[in-house]
Amino acid sequence: MDEKANISKTAIGSIAVDAMGGDLGPAEVVEAVTIALKFANAPKHITLVGQEDVLFPLLEQHKLANHKRIDVFNASEVIGMDEKPIQSLKHKKDSSLVRSVELVKLGQCEAAVSCGNTGSLMACGTLKLRTMPGVERPALSSIWPGGSGHFVMLDVGANPTPKPEHLVHNAILGSWHHKSIFETEKMPKVGLLSIGTEESKGHELIQTTNEYLKQIGDIINYVGPIEGFQVFNGDVDIVVCDGFTGNVLLKSSEGLYKMLKKDVTAEIKRRPWRILGALLLAGAFKSIKGKLNPDKYSGAPLLGLNGNVIKSHGSANKHAIAAAIIAATEFVRHDLALHAREDIEKANEIINAYKKS
Amino acid sequence: MDEKANISKTAIGSIAVDAMGGDLGPAEVVEAVTIALKFANAPKHITLVGQEDVLFPLLEQHKLANHKRIDVFNASEVIGMDEKPIQSLKHKKDSSLVRSVELVKLGQCEAAVSCGNTGSLMACGTLKLRTMPGVERPALSSIWPGGSGHFVMLDVGANPTPKPEHLVHNAILGSWHHKSIFETEKMPKVGLLSIGTEESKGHELIQTTNEYLKQIGDIINYVGPIEGFQVFNGDVDIVVCDGFTGNVLLKSSEGLYKMLKKDVTAEIKRRPWRILGALLLAGAFKSIKGKLNPDKYSGAPLLGLNGNVIKSHGSANKHAIAAAIIAATEFVRHDLALHAREDIEKANEIINAYKKS
Repeated sequence: MDEKANISKTAIGSIAVDAMGGDLGPAEVVEAVTIALKFANAPKHITLVGQEDVLFPLLEQHKLANHKRIDVFNASEVIGMDEKPIQSLKHKKDSSLVRSVELVKLGQCEAAVSCGNTGSLMACGTLKLRTMPGVERPALSSIWPGGSGHFVMLDVGANPTPKPEHLVHNAILGSWHHKSIFETEKMPKVGLLSIGTEESKGHELIQTTNEYLKQIGDIINYVGPIEGFQVFNGDVDIVVCDGFTGNVLLKSSEGLYKMLKKDVTAEIKRRPWRILGALLLAGAFKSIKGKLNPDKYSGAPLLGLNGNVIKSHGSANKHAIAAAIIAATEFVRHDLALHAREDIEKANEIINAYKKS
Repeated sequence: MDEKANISKTAIGSIAVDAMGGDLGPAEVVEAVTIALKFANAPKHITLVGQEDVLFPLLEQHKLANHKRIDVFNASEVIGMDEKPIQSLKHKKDSSLVRSVELVKLGQCEAAVSCGNTGSLMACGTLKLRTMPGVERPALSSIWPGGSGHFVMLDVGANPTPKPEHLVHNAILGSWHHKSIFETEKMPKVGLLSIGTEESKGHELIQTTNEYLKQIGDIINYVGPIEGFQVFNGDVDIVVCDGFTGNVLLKSSEGLYKMLKKDVTAEIKRRPWRILGALLLAGAFKSIKGKLNPDKYSGAPLLGLNGNVIKSHGSANKHAIAAAIIAATEFVRHDLALHAREDIEKANEIINAYKKS
């Protein structure tokens, strides 16, 4: 890989964007870049990573071929959405996904954004960037609409069988994620997702994690175990859970919302006067849709690595990808990793002392 | 316990109803009984289990004191919603919850319905009735509104750390639950809840369970692993999962629905013309609310026991409790346990042979 020949205009402040991943293809990603650059907090520079012969014509189309804030890093291969993570990394070393993460590793870019294969991105991020000191496994963190604004939920799929220590790290990483996005003064409230609020409820993972979280109490603002009812009611700002439960919850909530939307639309069409009612409520529906819109916070960072990797939905459209690029920029600006690292170290010391006692 | 003195009119076809459990108290349960008895498929007889001196005045109020299809079984104690399961059973042997299950064990009633402490009911059901031959752990099964009518999800909280065999039993028990409620000819489609549809996804529990379910293929209609998106989209009729994930999913889905309802109401109130819009859409909202109404299918049976135990929500109102009583009657009518038992035996034989191979 000859970076120098390939990268012409890349500078500090640059975000690597995997242009080939995602269901909607590179044309959507190029459009996303044009949208992202219009934001006040847009990255200084974007490196589109993918097949030159596909990307240059698209950039020409949008009159971006000579844009001083965009360049292209050629990567000849594409990892498919259904490829097995480890095999895809082994066989497609010159893929847009792998190259995007490598640009971060080499310090050529400060974050990588991809809407490609989640498993491959997680594996690639972990293999290339390694976890930060004191962290064993990364976590995929996502932002959700809730009773009092928005909340952070993690892990949503990186680590389906975590150890208690991993969940403690997630509580810390999630707190920093929340702070960097919402810039609140107050320490965000952290809840541990369980099947009841009593400490005796839930399995061993929950009970041990609860003990540890109580010990490190001053590093985060831990409120205790919460149950499913409390996920969306605004009781907490951070929902900590294993990657299996989080992934199921993320996808099923989207599914439930889609079902309700479909039901409402079908019901409206059943009677002519309901169309008028729907028109009168258009503003209300739009406002709710805006609150719930997954595009708005589509960037799910892979936390706990030595570098910023942001996952966007496989089905992300241009707005969602643009939002992920902006989220990546905010991550770089807040240097989340640096702050979290100190807290992780402190927490590990406390937990190790507690285990020995 | 002198049953004969206590039970006067109890007969086959009788349902024991724990009159003291539930957040709304015995008055709500007595009203539920009056509602249930109006249904065509009402039980022949209902035994209200609880404190006589509380229940008789309530029955008097409703002119039910001498109703030939209702009687009272006196139980002096009440288990609180927050009591620890095992301790509550040990210290409150004459509680309405324990006595209700005992009436089933003694053959005096054919099913017990309670909206009391879930943990105590599960523990009491398991201890008193024991699991059916070949089943190690019971599962709490519940009915949900979905893309194509309704689907069954289990386990929603009885067994948070199941073995693969337990999930196989749940697939069978859930299939029979679906058949007994919806009386469909076709074998209901069973999906195993995972974090992706690829067989390599999910943790060890999922992978081993998937192997077993493929082996017993002709006993149930297994379609393979499903992901969160498919829970509500009508792809499957039975969603099999561990009790931790199921419980979180059940409660968080209710939470999400409540949040959306609150958001819609708040948005409607923000502009005067939206009130008119809402009036025009009243029928549509009512229809959707009806579909989603948890009262309609509030009875969640504890499957896998030698006897019928039906859990209703702690916050269940009279309609929800009445629905649970009707569900109990349907269970008795279909003799679900008998059919499931044969399938469980067959499945265990196949799995044991497969393990040895």
